[in-house]
Amino acid sequence: MDIRVNEVGLRDGLQSQGKTLTVDERLALAQALAGAGLRFMEAGSFVSPKAVPQMAGTEDLFPRLPTPERIQYAALVPNMKGYERAVAAGARTVNVVLSVTETMNQKNINMSLARTAEVCEQIVARAADEGVSAQAYLAVAFECPFEGPVAPEVVAHYGERMRDAGAGKVIVADTIGAADPAKVDAVLGRLLEHLDVARVSCHFHDTRGMALANIHAAVLAGVREFDASIGGLGGCPFSPGASGNVATEDVVLMLQSMGLDTGIDPLDLVPVVREAERLTGTALGGKAFRWLSRQYAKTRGGQGDDQ
Amino acid sequence: MDIRVNEVGLRDGLQSQGKTLTVDERLALAQALAGAGLRFMEAGSFVSPKAVPQMAGTEDLFPRLPTPERIQYAALVPNMKGYERAVAAGARTVNVVLSVTETMNQKNINMSLARTAEVCEQIVARAADEGVSAQAYLAVAFECPFEGPVAPEVVAHYGERMRDAGAGKVIVADTIGAADPAKVDAVLGRLLEHLDVARVSCHFHDTRGMALANIHAAVLAGVREFDASIGGLGGCPFSPGASGNVATEDVVLMLQSMGLDTGIDPLDLVPVVREAERLTGTALGGKAFRWLSRQYAKTRGGQGDDQ
Repeated sequence: MDIRVNEVGLRDGLQSQGKTLTVDERLALAQALAGAGLRFMEAGSFVSPKAVPQMAGTEDLFPRLPTPERIQYAALVPNMKGYERAVAAGARTVNVVLSVTETMNQKNINMSLARTAEVCEQIVARAADEGVSAQAYLAVAFECPFEGPVAPEVVAHYGERMRDAGAGKVIVADTIGAADPAKVDAVLGRLLEHLDVARVSCHFHDTRGMALANIHAAVLAGVREFDASIGGLGGCPFSPGASGNVATEDVVLMLQSMGLDTGIDPLDLVPVVREAERLTGTALGGKAFRWLSRQYAKTRGGQGDDQ
Repeated sequence: MDIRVNEVGLRDGLQSQGKTLTVDERLALAQALAGAGLRFMEAGSFVSPKAVPQMAGTEDLFPRLPTPERIQYAALVPNMKGYERAVAAGARTVNVVLSVTETMNQKNINMSLARTAEVCEQIVARAADEGVSAQAYLAVAFECPFEGPVAPEVVAHYGERMRDAGAGKVIVADTIGAADPAKVDAVLGRLLEHLDVARVSCHFHDTRGMALANIHAAVLAGVREFDASIGGLGGCPFSPGASGNVATEDVVLMLQSMGLDTGIDPLDLVPVVREAERLTGTALGGKAFRWLSRQYAKTRGGQGDDQ
């Protein structure tokens, strides 16, 4: 495998859906993803079910996830209590999220940036002590909806702090889809001065249509792991299915076309997108989905998607 | 201006539309494009109106095109007769199209590759003699729908022949949207061994969602001119508005975001996309159009496009 594709549909994707899926439905999606060859997934979060009802029951989901010996399932944890719940449920990888601007932290979780960074460091350090893998998201790494463009130095500073605290991975997240290939170069260029590229992953949104171009820029910078969401599920700021997370099938198709192995056949993702559509009741599909659906119909029979 | 964006909606775009626009309607679209700052356009073709009814009346369109002293309007010419008609109508730039595989020429225009190459050379040479700019498209440069992948050496060979015949520009065209950034590197890498990059342009389709990534790869290779079609107009192999030419607004937005000046404000393209929708009766808009429409509504008032 040349590139790791980390599926975030089960958490980042489902979390922003109007419809709340049952644990059985979330499990069905996890099984479909596992069947298509996904080996890295963010499977859920341990937050308050009052705050995020879509993630209620993650305790019940984790022990039922398929073939955990072959698949890395991560759990998002917002605080130490969430960390403890995640580990108790069997999670062996936890994700913390650190938005790298003051206002985003204040508006989003009513904490200062300094305090959020401390909480993340504490969780990451405890995970390292307890043999749990920890991954740190650096959210709004390119642009903050409140403060505007973020300096690459800021991203590098918090990336190094998370690494020093014990994070095995630092994930640069373009939370609002504001990155472009030149900004990717700038942010990664600065970050990789002091951080091993093997510890860096990227998370792009396709709001402005540039996610694949950004991934291309990151691949050129040496990054070998990317987040993606099946069918582009989730994070749709404007209208359903429009422009949230970059779609897993788009990422896998581009990387495969470029001769980079992800361990996944993009055609195997076509029925998974359809299953995600069925479960969520939402029209999904990334930018290559129509073409992939045609290829699927041609080579494996069944219905195309060009009605 | 750092990058030239060459608008092909008036020809490549309209040619594949079910609805045939009148000359007045085509002129209205040209005026809207000119008003938004487009300075390079493929304005029409001089082919048989029986074969391509959408391009009938291009003789009448050319003399009426706005501010020709500031805008380069190109005419596609399939043969010497078309060249003569174009020049008689006032065209000062002509485009020839050379598909670089044998089967594509046989199936598409019932001529051998060798014969098509000769015809293109003759037109280009005559144009050079007569002080008319000639641009040579190398069609199916990445993959042929009949013969499969095309060797970069083949593209380079025909690119050099067209340059030697007198073409001021060689345009590498991903006619079926099969390129990826690695293939762009390979084809341009070979082509630019013997061809000045200032004479090279690229034409991408967004069928598999990779057009912006491909443009990014070409920018890194030094290319400074790209074709694009307003709202993605034209070349929709599957369904209207789905996946034809890369959309002008997507290209302009990405380049502007990267700090590369195209002389065009992407927000100015929003009303042009709407005008193109009105004229063609087709839903249009590239991948960033929804986001651009919101920005347009926020900053300039009027209706967004997120219904």
